[in-house]
Amino acid sequence: MLALAGIPLGYSFVFVDPSPNAPAAAVGEQLVCGYDDPLGQAALSECQVVTYEFESVPVEAAQALAERVPVFPPPFALRVAQDRLLEKNCFRSLGIGTALFEAVDSLEDLTRAVEILGLPAVLKTRRLGYDGKGQFVLKRPEDAAAAWAAVGQAPSILEGFVRFERELSLIAVRGRDGDTQFYPLVENHHRDGILRKTVAPAPALTGDLQGTAETYAQRILEHLEYVGVLALELFQTAGDMLLVNEIAPRVHNSGHFSIEGSRTSQFENHLRAILGLPLGDARPVSPSCMLNLVGTLPDREAVLAIPDAHLHLYGKSPRPGRKVGHITVRGSDEAQLANRLTLLQAIPGVCNEE
Amino acid sequence: MLALAGIPLGYSFVFVDPSPNAPAAAVGEQLVCGYDDPLGQAALSECQVVTYEFESVPVEAAQALAERVPVFPPPFALRVAQDRLLEKNCFRSLGIGTALFEAVDSLEDLTRAVEILGLPAVLKTRRLGYDGKGQFVLKRPEDAAAAWAAVGQAPSILEGFVRFERELSLIAVRGRDGDTQFYPLVENHHRDGILRKTVAPAPALTGDLQGTAETYAQRILEHLEYVGVLALELFQTAGDMLLVNEIAPRVHNSGHFSIEGSRTSQFENHLRAILGLPLGDARPVSPSCMLNLVGTLPDREAVLAIPDAHLHLYGKSPRPGRKVGHITVRGSDEAQLANRLTLLQAIPGVCNEE
Repeated sequence: MLALAGIPLGYSFVFVDPSPNAPAAAVGEQLVCGYDDPLGQAALSECQVVTYEFESVPVEAAQALAERVPVFPPPFALRVAQDRLLEKNCFRSLGIGTALFEAVDSLEDLTRAVEILGLPAVLKTRRLGYDGKGQFVLKRPEDAAAAWAAVGQAPSILEGFVRFERELSLIAVRGRDGDTQFYPLVENHHRDGILRKTVAPAPALTGDLQGTAETYAQRILEHLEYVGVLALELFQTAGDMLLVNEIAPRVHNSGHFSIEGSRTSQFENHLRAILGLPLGDARPVSPSCMLNLVGTLPDREAVLAIPDAHLHLYGKSPRPGRKVGHITVRGSDEAQLANRLTLLQAIPGVCNEE
Repeated sequence: MLALAGIPLGYSFVFVDPSPNAPAAAVGEQLVCGYDDPLGQAALSECQVVTYEFESVPVEAAQALAERVPVFPPPFALRVAQDRLLEKNCFRSLGIGTALFEAVDSLEDLTRAVEILGLPAVLKTRRLGYDGKGQFVLKRPEDAAAAWAAVGQAPSILEGFVRFERELSLIAVRGRDGDTQFYPLVENHHRDGILRKTVAPAPALTGDLQGTAETYAQRILEHLEYVGVLALELFQTAGDMLLVNEIAPRVHNSGHFSIEGSRTSQFENHLRAILGLPLGDARPVSPSCMLNLVGTLPDREAVLAIPDAHLHLYGKSPRPGRKVGHITVRGSDEAQLANRLTLLQAIPGVCNEE
């Protein structure tokens, strides 16, 4: 989607991806190799600028490359986003609302953290869980040993449980000159830990939630000397409070609506940012909604029969839990959008978020 | 632009183009060969569907292919569009307003045609002028011999001179099931025979110009059993009359605004049509304007600094008279659009239509 946005701007693309036949190969040259492979690094260092849209890229590979070619977002942002403790400390140091947390490096730490934060609480490894065992919910004090074993005794944090009303996200973008643009807050619906639906803008935004979210984003962008698109995942809690859950240093699934829903898409704005071009207007074109296609492909005809529905397939073969595409639908108002959404969600294979 | 619209729908593309390094090679597989080359034909016949976006493709090549694979628009439409006499007779037989004309196959025919139509009048070869000598304006009866020599004594038509107020076009699309969609009439500005600017929708559409244009288009689409996007080039004359000047059996430069200006672009709708998918909504998102980039590339930063301006470069090296890209700019109303247009047209390299 970055290349589809960048080809009309006159750019060509080289992709490094260890999987053969990556979808991006349809719109550029693919090097099938690891992110730290010297041949891949050599090819990338010939580029005008290098970016990533996968946050498990090794920080060391990004740093090595950054000595030879501009790499945005900066590798430091990648390092922070890959480590829940650095990330939470960043939020805390910037006065940004987030869940209460304590660092946990031993069972003793965990026992003490449980006393401080109370229960329930969630033990999460600092690094993203490559083994699918990255999280454990503690309900009773005697769960501590099982929790510590479940995360493989890896450096972790314990997070106080957040009772939230809904999940929101903010897509922000900062250019090389420090200019910023913010997309409207969007409302996200997950099932089994996978994003299913994004409503843009988020309905019923009370108080100054948008302003608060932008203030938080601005602080993080400046602190990280960030360039590119940054996603903030947020919780809205009782009393219209906002807590930042985590950041993603890349174009984000909850910003896919922007291809049709915004005056400039997150993909084009990410490219504009890292290339030092003026940022584009991030305001909405109309209310829109994004539905992920997870695991199965719906009937193309049925989807395209819905007015102002736009299909995006990624060229991936379907398998359970895999995001193989998305649909964005627009409506001239929220009622029309809701109608079209009902029609779309009745199509087999289109995610129903509940 | 067809491939950029079709990749998200899950399709891949093979292009036949005799020029090496055609821009389309960035988004699909290019076969560098003539349109009638057996190898190219064999590769195309493996495709699900074949189309063209260049109206000088030999009709015979399209016809041969159509025996092996669906080819849309139908080769008969290509034949009609390539021959001004067939085209004008088509309009006349369907009761569609067009300039008065007479077939000219000899100097005697021309002399008689001048007597019938009066002067000034334009002599045009029936086939499009491959040698740049396809037209000659006759002002006095004694110009006949020079005109006949100028068109190389090729089969021609003489057209009565049309005094028009402005040039409009209508982008129409018809699906395999006969369903149709019509884009709003747009206003076109040419200089030196090259389209420079399209305003969409055309301002100040009085009377039922849109309805008349759609009726004309519907008749042509049905008569040609057409599938795909068809452009009608029209003249608006005094008293809100519409005359069809010619048709283009393909996605059309005056429809490029639709990428951002319409709910579904002409490119996506052309693909939907030829693939037998439901057509998309052709209504506008907002007023928009398309400016062609002819011969030179403007400064990218300057263009992208204009709010809601969208740059499309084709990956072609600039040379005089060559279309190397376009810009579409949107505005929430005509006044805002006019403001942004003024800013854009002040950028060196961006076409100023006057």
